[in-house]
Amino acid sequence: MSGPQRTRVVAFGGGKGLSVALRALRCLDVDITAVVTVADDGGSSGRLRIDRDALPPGDLRQALAALSGDEAAARLIQHRYDGADSLSGHTVGNLMLVGLLEMHADPVAALDEAGRLMRAHGRVLPMASVPLRIEADVLDDHGRPTVVSGQHNVAVCRGTVTDVRLAPADPPVAVEVLSAVAEADWLIFGPGSWYTSVLPHLLTPRLREAIGKSGARRLITLNLSEDTETAGLSLAGHLGAFAKYADGVTIDAVIADARAVGYPDPVASAAESLGARLVLARVAREDGTPRHDPDALAAALRRLLLEADDPDDPATMETPRRSAGE
Amino acid sequence: MSGPQRTRVVAFGGGKGLSVALRALRCLDVDITAVVTVADDGGSSGRLRIDRDALPPGDLRQALAALSGDEAAARLIQHRYDGADSLSGHTVGNLMLVGLLEMHADPVAALDEAGRLMRAHGRVLPMASVPLRIEADVLDDHGRPTVVSGQHNVAVCRGTVTDVRLAPADPPVAVEVLSAVAEADWLIFGPGSWYTSVLPHLLTPRLREAIGKSGARRLITLNLSEDTETAGLSLAGHLGAFAKYADGVTIDAVIADARAVGYPDPVASAAESLGARLVLARVAREDGTPRHDPDALAAALRRLLLEADDPDDPATMETPRRSAGE
Repeated sequence: MSGPQRTRVVAFGGGKGLSVALRALRCLDVDITAVVTVADDGGSSGRLRIDRDALPPGDLRQALAALSGDEAAARLIQHRYDGADSLSGHTVGNLMLVGLLEMHADPVAALDEAGRLMRAHGRVLPMASVPLRIEADVLDDHGRPTVVSGQHNVAVCRGTVTDVRLAPADPPVAVEVLSAVAEADWLIFGPGSWYTSVLPHLLTPRLREAIGKSGARRLITLNLSEDTETAGLSLAGHLGAFAKYADGVTIDAVIADARAVGYPDPVASAAESLGARLVLARVAREDGTPRHDPDALAAALRRLLLEADDPDDPATMETPRRSAGE
Repeated sequence: MSGPQRTRVVAFGGGKGLSVALRALRCLDVDITAVVTVADDGGSSGRLRIDRDALPPGDLRQALAALSGDEAAARLIQHRYDGADSLSGHTVGNLMLVGLLEMHADPVAALDEAGRLMRAHGRVLPMASVPLRIEADVLDDHGRPTVVSGQHNVAVCRGTVTDVRLAPADPPVAVEVLSAVAEADWLIFGPGSWYTSVLPHLLTPRLREAIGKSGARRLITLNLSEDTETAGLSLAGHLGAFAKYADGVTIDAVIADARAVGYPDPVASAAESLGARLVLARVAREDGTPRHDPDALAAALRRLLLEADDPDDPATMETPRRSAGE
């Protein structure tokens, strides 16, 4: 990370989790590329992909809002129409993005134009150039296997996800995404809905291959708690699920909130299985809610990405002490 | 017009006619305020005022696009969704403006924010703070009197408009509009749909009063031809209709295209009745279509607004020679 060039960071994810990562990253003087899931099929995005065959815009919009250098413009694109007419439930930004995607044959050109209008601190790219559909094998509350189709259904389903896949299975990925991954200094996964926002990037063969080949260091930011789609899955289990789809891609560091981790040994072991060191930090809000504090996350990321050339240097990090017993 | 301050111009109108005036004015180094009709009830604007009780955004959007300092942003707000779903027929800009109008209790604040986002060369204000409805008395093709309600219906109706009025009859007008009129150096009417875009400003009592009291000079830019709503009405007749609703407001100059006017005497007489001198210029496109050329109109406006302190100075203007005969 020496030399005059800014550290280049690619952040993978979708929805609120990715927004938190981006809000933290923009506090650092780094070059940001967000590579965003395009599998949403709920709410406004779901209606737009059905009605207009559009790349679902919701996660892209949230990433743009997080990176926007124009606060009023960010508020505008996040404004959601209320009422009971056909606009109700849409956001201004989703409709604006649909317009831009219609005007530009190339979705990357549409998103670059949106980024320019928002004066974005970084680039927002779609993880695939076509809408994706997520499908999951789930064991229901009675242990019966079922198949759940669609990001929204997977995100809200009760039961245990045992496998997740994408349709199409090998979607096209823009060359700008592959270049950003190849040229990055750091690749960052999470936080976010694990199966529907974080893992889809690994389920995309061309993206997973680019991630594996990149000389970048790789970082996972763990969630603070399980959510509906990962009910019953521990934080160590999150890393296990990541490993299952990583196809040998190793990780350099895992950032986790010390309080969320509790006894760190299982998480540290799971991180080690991925080749990573566990870095414990305070990254949650002070108010006790299981949400990341962007400033605290920024501080942890700054130490790791910018101040420590060697993430294995214990002097620069708070690291968990392995307990003597279990 | 002396002193270091830029010449302050208020342009009244709506739709494509106002856009032409604004595109011409922005070629001049003047301070522009567009005061825009909010009576549209057709197409996208009509649906939005019914579905969402919104100030009809279409004419405001067109004025913003004409003044936009960001060409790509102007193209975006003018983009019209095709297809057959509920978005079809709307423009990105109409939906954006509806969002801004929902976010800001004050429509002027919403439009100032839109202008900021578009980097507008000037200010776009609504002529009234509530949606207006236009109603006209019309003699149909058989000479029978009928009442036609709604801007869209009046604009496309066949027959002769004999009277036009607004509901509500005395709508609220934003203080920013009244101030702009009071402080202007020039007030400009037209071109545009005469009954539905140009005259409504005179039909609004608070606005007409401000126009009459202002120390500004007043200019009418005539249309190039009659259109559906003014079928059968000559250019002199346009000025007569203006006079009918002007309530004594005088005009300093009337700009008309020399070819469109043909024999100038009737138009010059009608202009004189308003207190105005007729200024003939080439302001239509070279291709023979009855549309204004913004550059040519800009040249005519520049001579009148910026180069001639005295519009009655014949040295600076091409003026029609009154014919000896009729």
